[in-house]
Amino acid sequence: MNKTKEIYEVALKWTKQAGTMLKNTLQNSLHVEYKTSAADLVTEKDREIEQFFVQKINATYPNHFILGEEGSASEQAKYDPMKETVWIIDPIDGTTNFVHQKRNFAISVGIYEKGQPVIGIIYDPISDECFHAQRGEGAYLNEQQLPSITGGNLEESLVAMNSLWLTPNNHLDHERLQAMVNEVRGVRCQGSAALELAYVACGRLDASIAIGLGPWDFGGGYVLLNEVGASITTVDNQPIDPFHPSSVFVAKPEIHPIILENYLFRR
Amino acid sequence: MNKTKEIYEVALKWTKQAGTMLKNTLQNSLHVEYKTSAADLVTEKDREIEQFFVQKINATYPNHFILGEEGSASEQAKYDPMKETVWIIDPIDGTTNFVHQKRNFAISVGIYEKGQPVIGIIYDPISDECFHAQRGEGAYLNEQQLPSITGGNLEESLVAMNSLWLTPNNHLDHERLQAMVNEVRGVRCQGSAALELAYVACGRLDASIAIGLGPWDFGGGYVLLNEVGASITTVDNQPIDPFHPSSVFVAKPEIHPIILENYLFRR
Repeated sequence: MNKTKEIYEVALKWTKQAGTMLKNTLQNSLHVEYKTSAADLVTEKDREIEQFFVQKINATYPNHFILGEEGSASEQAKYDPMKETVWIIDPIDGTTNFVHQKRNFAISVGIYEKGQPVIGIIYDPISDECFHAQRGEGAYLNEQQLPSITGGNLEESLVAMNSLWLTPNNHLDHERLQAMVNEVRGVRCQGSAALELAYVACGRLDASIAIGLGPWDFGGGYVLLNEVGASITTVDNQPIDPFHPSSVFVAKPEIHPIILENYLFRR
Repeated sequence: MNKTKEIYEVALKWTKQAGTMLKNTLQNSLHVEYKTSAADLVTEKDREIEQFFVQKINATYPNHFILGEEGSASEQAKYDPMKETVWIIDPIDGTTNFVHQKRNFAISVGIYEKGQPVIGIIYDPISDECFHAQRGEGAYLNEQQLPSITGGNLEESLVAMNSLWLTPNNHLDHERLQAMVNEVRGVRCQGSAALELAYVACGRLDASIAIGLGPWDFGGGYVLLNEVGASITTVDNQPIDPFHPSSVFVAKPEIHPIILENYLFRR
């Protein structure tokens, strides 16, 4: 087994373990709610899951680096991501759903080798759906390989987007997006950027438009979407820099240029 | 056991059976997709499930009436719903999700006696979540009783709404709703009116705003929401006529007047 494949299997195992921890927390949360606020619960669990990964990674792969939403990277010496193996981890993507719905959130793990995305994992522990991919080896939902996403047309598309972008804002032209809403089959708002990427990868959605994502929000989705042939750019049609905050626009390859040119790209 | 309780248990049994039929259809749908279009599949399954209920009801309760989305009512003699027992059935609520996602749809069943809603059932067969209530007996998610929904504030609320109402339209003031989007914690679009009502009933959502629903879209949710203390009106703050198309605005009792007065009601 090559080294990347070994890391892939270990990352899958740890992600499932972390998911079980979150699931157990929610099942016991009747008690938790009396002791602490919802915001505290998220902060506590975000840190706990990130520390779980940090300890595992440090013990097993001491030369790997970690970029986590909760700031683990800052504790490490400066490093050049183009020369190293980097884990990009979001312990709970969809924190509002975690607290409010006790579902519809995910753990997102992306692993980059010398700047190249090689492994992506998005795990929803409540529905027990694990979306995962290794570069060049196909994408999977649990044990089932996902087919390439292709075909379709704008009129039959489901597009994921935050409703904020349909109100006046500094990032996107809300009037052009209003026109899109009236052209597509429907808009869905999941409340988890990582799950929206996973759902595009498995064909439940046809496109996802997101602004201001951190590396941890899309690190898990990148390889997954690449493996099924999705088109992935910023909303300005630029390549995504996986190590910095970015907008992310992913779609079926036939639909990506249509939405980009008609509703997103500032010409 | 009184008569209504008996009907409740029979309705639950039939709804679960119908859900299993839909679930099996989707598991076998790789074959179906080659034979028929997605639209044909929905039409076929909508009719099949409705006919399943019609046959069961006619055989067991020949004096009950049926108001179904697929038009069963039109085959019956004219009747006065204020004097009869009426089943209001949506065989597949969320047809786009049914075809596109193979999940996130529901069977909705509401039963009215002499114009009064007495039984409500919303069943998601993929997640195996059955929301159900008999008037005066509490609301349940599967075996677990749902607590009254209370508390909360607008800033922490999750509101379900179709993105169309954030674009210029003839039904609601999209600019006032844009202001709401910027006040609440988040907007969610599920793509199934019945499931959005069920999610308000169990606290996953705090409010749901819907326009142009048929009786079959909210017939299942009505008793459910009543039993947990939700506020239920049209978007113009009128009582809902369960036998005619209507807008539906449901929310936690504390949040209902705030959204109504600030973002919906045309003064």
